[in-house]
Amino acid sequence: MTLRKDLRRVLAPRSIAVVGVSTNPGGFGGATIERLADFSGPLYRVNPRYAVIGDQPCWPSVSALPEVPDCVVIATGRDMVEPIARECADLGVGGVIIYASGYAEVSGGDGAALQERLTELARTSGMRIVGPNCIGVQNFTLAANITFHSRTMLRDPAPHAIGLVSQSGALGNALTQAVESGMQISHALASGNSCDVDAADLVTFLAGEPSCRAIACLFEGMAKPARMIEAARIAWAAGKPLVIYKIASSQQGAAAALSHTGSLAGSHAAYRAALERHGAVLVDDLEALLETAAFFAKVPPATADGVAVIATSGGASVICADKAEIQGVALPQPGPEAQAILNANIPDFGSARNPCDVTAQVINDPQSLIACIEALFADPVYGALVQANPYASAVTLPRLDVLGTKARAAGKAACWVSFSGWLDGPGLIEAERNPDVALFRSFDRCFAALAAWHWRSARLIAPTEDVPWQADAATRAAVASQISAAGLCLTEREAKAALAHYGLPVVEEALVQSAEEAVAAARRTGYPVAIKVESPDILHKTEAGVLALNLGDAAQLREAYAMVWANALKVAPSERLNGVLVQPMIPQGIELMIGVKVDPLFGPLLVVGFGGILVELLRDTALMPAPVSRGEALGMLTRLKGAALLKGFRGMPAVDLDRLADVIVRAGAFAADHAEAISEVDINPLICAGERIVAVDALILRAEQAAPHNIQDVVET
Amino acid sequence: MTLRKDLRRVLAPRSIAVVGVSTNPGGFGGATIERLADFSGPLYRVNPRYAVIGDQPCWPSVSALPEVPDCVVIATGRDMVEPIARECADLGVGGVIIYASGYAEVSGGDGAALQERLTELARTSGMRIVGPNCIGVQNFTLAANITFHSRTMLRDPAPHAIGLVSQSGALGNALTQAVESGMQISHALASGNSCDVDAADLVTFLAGEPSCRAIACLFEGMAKPARMIEAARIAWAAGKPLVIYKIASSQQGAAAALSHTGSLAGSHAAYRAALERHGAVLVDDLEALLETAAFFAKVPPATADGVAVIATSGGASVICADKAEIQGVALPQPGPEAQAILNANIPDFGSARNPCDVTAQVINDPQSLIACIEALFADPVYGALVQANPYASAVTLPRLDVLGTKARAAGKAACWVSFSGWLDGPGLIEAERNPDVALFRSFDRCFAALAAWHWRSARLIAPTEDVPWQADAATRAAVASQISAAGLCLTEREAKAALAHYGLPVVEEALVQSAEEAVAAARRTGYPVAIKVESPDILHKTEAGVLALNLGDAAQLREAYAMVWANALKVAPSERLNGVLVQPMIPQGIELMIGVKVDPLFGPLLVVGFGGILVELLRDTALMPAPVSRGEALGMLTRLKGAALLKGFRGMPAVDLDRLADVIVRAGAFAADHAEAISEVDINPLICAGERIVAVDALILRAEQAAPHNIQDVVET
Repeated sequence: MTLRKDLRRVLAPRSIAVVGVSTNPGGFGGATIERLADFSGPLYRVNPRYAVIGDQPCWPSVSALPEVPDCVVIATGRDMVEPIARECADLGVGGVIIYASGYAEVSGGDGAALQERLTELARTSGMRIVGPNCIGVQNFTLAANITFHSRTMLRDPAPHAIGLVSQSGALGNALTQAVESGMQISHALASGNSCDVDAADLVTFLAGEPSCRAIACLFEGMAKPARMIEAARIAWAAGKPLVIYKIASSQQGAAAALSHTGSLAGSHAAYRAALERHGAVLVDDLEALLETAAFFAKVPPATADGVAVIATSGGASVICADKAEIQGVALPQPGPEAQAILNANIPDFGSARNPCDVTAQVINDPQSLIACIEALFADPVYGALVQANPYASAVTLPRLDVLGTKARAAGKAACWVSFSGWLDGPGLIEAERNPDVALFRSFDRCFAALAAWHWRSARLIAPTEDVPWQADAATRAAVASQISAAGLCLTEREAKAALAHYGLPVVEEALVQSAEEAVAAARRTGYPVAIKVESPDILHKTEAGVLALNLGDAAQLREAYAMVWANALKVAPSERLNGVLVQPMIPQGIELMIGVKVDPLFGPLLVVGFGGILVELLRDTALMPAPVSRGEALGMLTRLKGAALLKGFRGMPAVDLDRLADVIVRAGAFAADHAEAISEVDINPLICAGERIVAVDALILRAEQAAPHNIQDVVET
Repeated sequence: MTLRKDLRRVLAPRSIAVVGVSTNPGGFGGATIERLADFSGPLYRVNPRYAVIGDQPCWPSVSALPEVPDCVVIATGRDMVEPIARECADLGVGGVIIYASGYAEVSGGDGAALQERLTELARTSGMRIVGPNCIGVQNFTLAANITFHSRTMLRDPAPHAIGLVSQSGALGNALTQAVESGMQISHALASGNSCDVDAADLVTFLAGEPSCRAIACLFEGMAKPARMIEAARIAWAAGKPLVIYKIASSQQGAAAALSHTGSLAGSHAAYRAALERHGAVLVDDLEALLETAAFFAKVPPATADGVAVIATSGGASVICADKAEIQGVALPQPGPEAQAILNANIPDFGSARNPCDVTAQVINDPQSLIACIEALFADPVYGALVQANPYASAVTLPRLDVLGTKARAAGKAACWVSFSGWLDGPGLIEAERNPDVALFRSFDRCFAALAAWHWRSARLIAPTEDVPWQADAATRAAVASQISAAGLCLTEREAKAALAHYGLPVVEEALVQSAEEAVAAARRTGYPVAIKVESPDILHKTEAGVLALNLGDAAQLREAYAMVWANALKVAPSERLNGVLVQPMIPQGIELMIGVKVDPLFGPLLVVGFGGILVELLRDTALMPAPVSRGEALGMLTRLKGAALLKGFRGMPAVDLDRLADVIVRAGAFAADHAEAISEVDINPLICAGERIVAVDALILRAEQAAPHNIQDVVET
């Protein structure tokens, strides 16, 4: 038996059989047959109870068919599913689609076990299984509407069509209805319970389909996030823009997802970082999912970061300026040549600057608008032109054609923003269908998409393919054995020693057993010093009162020594106190933290943020799955809201970003190398001033240990 | 001549004349006549060149009409406008609407002067003038479509209609087109150049109109923000929800607005604070403006903060949970009675919790959905029910009716979220028209509206009508004379003395002239101390090196004294150095700042935020026009992102919020009392720990002085 893994036979079939068709046109089978009316290949009805249905022959079984069909729809109740699926697998069917519910989505009962048997069948036979508990798939390029549910159909999608993947059938159906408003969609694929084919498979399939120019994907979680991350990598490599809306991004959303489908939502920040690493564009709502994907399907890569705005309404141009600023999209002024043309064509009650208000006079003088559009496209400062036509009106139709024609000639992007309460009014369907003009029904979404386009275009030009740094084998082995020899929680001294092996800069320190030894150590490093009791039993030194800072001389040091030791004895027995660490006080600087949390779904996640209480509260952190490259480490620093602090602020020296990135890269390598052995690393504070970057405290928890506090809590969500 | 100020005659006319009608039906006059076809009152055509137009009589002038019309549309070119307007004013016309452009929107030329003459005419005659440079107004309750532009018409708007005000004609037109999708609108009023009637007048007019239940207003700026703020107060007093989208909220948006209409955008944060003070709901995009206003027009005040979600799709319920969390809307679990009914009616592959997934089985068993809806409405924990029906389908129509009926019976709010790519598909227009169900085409907007509804409902129940604190007359006079006697910049010592008059707690200090005097002063207050050179020439003490902190003993103090004095002499002549301030070091606490900036449009604005470099960079501030009441001061503190810091964090004591609010109230009174004399106040840091709240530094600039740094820069925008 050969393994048939390719999805083409089930998603782009030459022949289809529907098992469980009855004479009831409203049943699952009958509804599927109805929606397949335009399918041009052989379509077989299968049901042992009928010889004919209407005027069409009906076959008793899949085995009895005159050919082995590419795709079999199992439209029966749950009990009959498995034998039919096995029959199909034995025959060599390409794939089956299973509608029935009552599988893993039901808690308790035998549903999960039954689904597991289907998974095993797919694995051993290689026959692909879509579902169970799914509404089916639609391949509009073949009129293959293999679904009992969606009534949306589209003949001959345009070359700028997008492919749609949705874990949720109902939401996928809702998105597909955009076809009714002119959206061009090549495929609408719902994965249901994903016993075999999941959303990542469907994205990967679409990445190879020339009939779609971009992919829109909605999902709530994956048991193995790495599958979707790999799909993103494949889509990027295929040059196919991938726009993702990951739902269940909140705590209560994740709880709802777990309750509904058993999906583990996973860390939203980790998904975002991992998917963006491969060039996927993440959006935060359904509306943006479709418009952004359709935009990417129409526009070439950006040739310049500047965007020109042309509007027939002053108010619309003001909103464009507002939204561009929010999204960080630059609206530079035109060069002298374009400026001269604007001046000559825009009346004095308009505005011949960017954003341009050409005013409603273009109704009387359409040629003036064309001249302005040409001039703006010709200006090398602009890579895109946004034309705002706030209301729907047939009068705008010729303008739409002009915009598209000029955009194509210039090889630049054109956006048509038509906020109109009349959602399907004249001009809107036409804009959706225009191959060279991206339609937005929202100013926010237009400028957010432009910002994402700039980001993705920059990645196309200069891919950050730098390879993460690796420690040598001896270092890895030494640290591994150090960790395995330690207690469940490494002491500060142990943790810093382990990190120092990876080249992380840690504060120098001496472990002493008496006040006099402490004084001697302080004499060597110089005052002021800090002292901390070293014990595996004391994780939170401030709270336990076993830490003293800024000790200026021997007298202060002796006094503090007595105090911290006495406090330590209140919380731990003396045999668990290893001594006292003496460290020089590190002069003031920007305090950062580097954390690692080993996530059950994602593996090691690296978190970088500002240290100190205020910023921890404000949750200014950046996250990446470890390991990270140098470019990614720099990117994490750039994403911090307080990034400007690193560049020097109020007299503090600028932090050496190259050196800081190097420290982050090494922490990432540490996390990746020891992900099995540890659960958490917390380097906090990392004091940074110019080139001087020093970890003053560090904590490492081994994998067996439940985390006493949760780095996730400070992750931006 | 009596002054006719009432807007009713022009906006709800019994008779209309259109001056400048020609035989060209596409001209401004002809188009207006066409759109008034359904107007039931007398409609007069006026043009001296015609006796009849078509089969209708045409009159040579307004004076020649058989009656004085309520409303006259001047549809002529600019040159003929003023004589006609004067004729109308002399006759006692209620108001005129002027389409012509070429007035204040054109920079240079005589446009501004011509508009000023129209303003003067309105002022002296009391005849109201709408425009110039406007597209007209539509009063759908009278079929009075007094416009050359909009083709949108609506007969007999429903009682849940909203009234619409837009400064921009084109955007107003776009919004009005929502009528085509079922939105009920009573009036669509555009103010154009606002030589007399402005957006604030139009809001005030609608506040008194029983034909609209809520008001949606879009504007970009007002020369006198107080007018719009007063309109918000009137709308609140009339019980009319007011939803506002203030555009030109960004720096480049404000620049575009200035360029387009000469509007001063004004501080967005100040508008938001001042309008919210009167219960207006501010939104950030066009889409939210309409949906939020329509929502408020349909729902009763909230009886509980809990919201129940019911969906036929697991994915949709997950998105609801995500968006509710972002908006801070609680989705509590049902009480036992409701829970029992959910358990009995929701299949095991659904979810009988909040959010509920009743699954698509409701298609087969509609009664189960009805039972769940009834149970959720009956549960006192819920004030609103959100029903998510992601795709458009005729099958949902009976559900819509059920939802509305049950909501009305329960006296609770019902929202229908229908994200469908098919924007006008079955069920959507019906939902818009349903008087008891608010339609949202976005999950984000639904939960944002619910959050605003909770906020507004809480205000209805417990209005914060507390009166700001006032200083007595003697205090006001003393401070006024102190300020007028000072230099352009008050020294730290002068500023703190002035603020101390208003009861603001300032650090104790001594002004000394020698190191030995400093040592004596320090002996009185106790070490450690801080010293600062006092000079009107040195604003930024840190940068000038004339400040030393944490001096622990007399030796350190003497050394620091010499240093700061030497540094001071580098930047200012000795005769401008008043001496050195000696202050006790205030122990650690939360550092806040209180700022005042006298804004040219708004007057004194009070800003409260965290001090320290990090949070200044992160722009965590709250703003209010001064003076502020105690409740408003507490509200400002609550709005800070880092508000939790005030409640005790990592061992710091909770700040005494009552005492802190009192300090803010006093600062606000200071700002309001001396707004004419000062341009800026900066109290920073204000160190807070428990009850101990002390201003450690303060700066006051007099009005003549240009601000050396701009408090606006740190205002949240």
